[in-house]
Amino acid sequence: MIHIHGAAQIATLGGASTKPKTGKEMEELGLIEDGGIVIDDGIFVFVGSSGEANRYVKEHSGDKSVTVLSAAGKTVTPGLIDPHTHIVFAGSREFELNLRLQGAKYLDILQAGGGILYTTERTREATEEQLMAETVRRLDRFLSHGVTTIEAKSGYGLRLNDELKQLRVARRLDAAHPVELVSTFMGAHAVPAEYKGDADAFVRTVTEEMIPAVAREGLAEFCDVFCEEGVFTVEQSRDILEAGKRWGLKPKIHADELVSCGGAELAAQLGAVSADHLLHASKDGIRQMAEQGVIAVLLPGTAFFLMAPPADARAMITAGVPVALSTDRNPGSSPTESLPFIMNLACLTMRMTPAEVLTACTINAAHAIGRAASIGSIEVGKQADLVMFDAPNYLYLQYHYAVNLTDTVLKKGDVVIRDGKRVPI
Amino acid sequence: MIHIHGAAQIATLGGASTKPKTGKEMEELGLIEDGGIVIDDGIFVFVGSSGEANRYVKEHSGDKSVTVLSAAGKTVTPGLIDPHTHIVFAGSREFELNLRLQGAKYLDILQAGGGILYTTERTREATEEQLMAETVRRLDRFLSHGVTTIEAKSGYGLRLNDELKQLRVARRLDAAHPVELVSTFMGAHAVPAEYKGDADAFVRTVTEEMIPAVAREGLAEFCDVFCEEGVFTVEQSRDILEAGKRWGLKPKIHADELVSCGGAELAAQLGAVSADHLLHASKDGIRQMAEQGVIAVLLPGTAFFLMAPPADARAMITAGVPVALSTDRNPGSSPTESLPFIMNLACLTMRMTPAEVLTACTINAAHAIGRAASIGSIEVGKQADLVMFDAPNYLYLQYHYAVNLTDTVLKKGDVVIRDGKRVPI
Ligand SMILES: [Zn+2]
Ligand SMILES: [Zn+2]
Repeated sequence: MIHIHGAAQIATLGGASTKPKTGKEMEELGLIEDGGIVIDDGIFVFVGSSGEANRYVKEHSGDKSVTVLSAAGKTVTPGLIDPHTHIVFAGSREFELNLRLQGAKYLDILQAGGGILYTTERTREATEEQLMAETVRRLDRFLSHGVTTIEAKSGYGLRLNDELKQLRVARRLDAAHPVELVSTFMGAHAVPAEYKGDADAFVRTVTEEMIPAVAREGLAEFCDVFCEEGVFTVEQSRDILEAGKRWGLKPKIHADELVSCGGAELAAQLGAVSADHLLHASKDGIRQMAEQGVIAVLLPGTAFFLMAPPADARAMITAGVPVALSTDRNPGSSPTESLPFIMNLACLTMRMTPAEVLTACTINAAHAIGRAASIGSIEVGKQADLVMFDAPNYLYLQYHYAVNLTDTVLKKGDVVIRDGKRVPI
Repeated sequence: MIHIHGAAQIATLGGASTKPKTGKEMEELGLIEDGGIVIDDGIFVFVGSSGEANRYVKEHSGDKSVTVLSAAGKTVTPGLIDPHTHIVFAGSREFELNLRLQGAKYLDILQAGGGILYTTERTREATEEQLMAETVRRLDRFLSHGVTTIEAKSGYGLRLNDELKQLRVARRLDAAHPVELVSTFMGAHAVPAEYKGDADAFVRTVTEEMIPAVAREGLAEFCDVFCEEGVFTVEQSRDILEAGKRWGLKPKIHADELVSCGGAELAAQLGAVSADHLLHASKDGIRQMAEQGVIAVLLPGTAFFLMAPPADARAMITAGVPVALSTDRNPGSSPTESLPFIMNLACLTMRMTPAEVLTACTINAAHAIGRAASIGSIEVGKQADLVMFDAPNYLYLQYHYAVNLTDTVLKKGDVVIRDGKRVPI
């Protein structure tokens, strides 16, 4: 049994496990001052005031050993959830930065030997063990920033065996690392060099070979596609996501990142779980997403790193679209694991409020990866994932910016970070 | 003796100890691949290739004990220097953030009980010991991000005894903490409530009482003033900085942050060491700064946190102004200690290059606080302040953004951080 007591503030994010929060609900954090939490067998069994938690422990601990953790002066939130990463890859692309600062665009970078096809080459060359080793370091950094669950996409293999390799790495790391991984197949991340000029043929490979193989091996829960002018059209994207659905993979979509091309509308038509990026989503696409309850996963770090204006979060929240946030961790357009910094960016570049960004990185993010029944809030019966931040209240997380305030992290009831340091399990 | 070997890359920043780097010189980092460094008695005694460093140690170590530190896979830079902070204060102001997100301006915040006068009240109430305790936590965070020297301004006392209290705290912490502090008197940070409507009377108090008292007690090396429309005029600022000069305090100036009001020009006329902020500096002011060698200390974190466009760094570099960067650490407009993140911002929001930002946070920052003879570069004879980053090259520092890559920190030859963890001395 674990007894957390004396928290300056607990943001429980309770009451939204069946439907993501929208509009004004995103401001409601379920705050408790001077709070206490009791965990048993990896599950929250009590959440309330410090005094009530003391009584609960006295009455229910019996002869169980009780680990007591002070949360004095700390703010406690659910474990943070990142619903959109491309974390399994090899290599890094710092050499592109000077080109980009001089104004180089996506195609210029590709021609200079960079871009996604560079990462594809490195990832194809890497063994499963090499990919594991590189990815563990990124998971360690996520964990050190309070992130206890991430979604992980394939999409740097772009051929069957290497897509499967990426997904197997994610599955092995889900078992081996405290951070929980939820897998998405994204073979349609780019058209590989072998299929240059024949995207349709590649789409057939994705739908006829890759999706069935991924589904048979049970390697993914979601299917994603980069629907964008010059990458995959709305029609190709629809084919891929419908094939995924037939094989039990729930649809997600990279939509309207660079131009408005109907991605948000497609997400609504397909009943996608989420549509992500949305920098150029149309007004009508946003309205349709709200009607269908499609979650907008916004990635302000990518806009920041690409020096572009971010998505219009306020318009989406006002329209009733549930909003989640993510790092988009990837080697080209967003090389960071700091989801707390993404929250800072969401406030300062998209004017989301401190309450909205916390909702977006907890319960709404849980919905975006189909896990809201078990994580995303501090509620009795849920898996005990939580973070204590070195902050007197939740507002402070968006105030003391760009530093890591993570003090303590619990994953499935295990203390994995304490005093900012990794605890060996 | 300390022997650092096998560094993937050392950025020495050598050759600019007498004059800050300007223009294209800011791109020259003095890179060494597979580098080695030898430190004796807190001073760099050898800097070169790993092989040569091995030979140096063999020939010169005699019967001294040699501590060997591997820098394999790491990038080594001079200890980072922050030339503009307001670190000594009490309290925090996270409650202002929601107001600012709704569009509140400086005066609205003041009327809501926030702003600088809130911090002044908290700082006046605090004892010297309380101020020490709060400030130590901020210094710890600076150190954990590779910052080994900072400038620290007074300016939250706004009356003699409390200004002296702030400066005494800085002096005590300079002796007690690994981070080195260089003090600036900034009594003219705002007009305190007692002098409301009579700024001239307050200026007389600053020049006739405060500056002499600070100088007699040897509590500061620099004098600074907030020269801004609605705060202190150019004439008042000139009076204050000239009084400072008569008492041996070198001039610095908060110039042209909110409007263009002649601050850059005043800095040039007075031969100020630096002019800081400069978001609205005039073209002519920049030209005059270049002619007089006044350093521009740019604060992109403040612009970011206030959701304003940053200064025009490129125009200044092109005009030949030496540029330095700083966090502006303060409780209102820039609550962060991450100077590495300020470098990220300088690249992504001001399009400075990865090489320029490193120059700006090392040798040019050393010049901005009058310390370039002893710190700011890794050169034989200089004080052994350095950082090893978990990065294969200096470009990577601006690529893997918003996370703390600091692996090892040496201050005056002492290992104070290793493997990202504080080493007790
Ligand atoms: Zn993505
Ligand atoms: Zn300042």
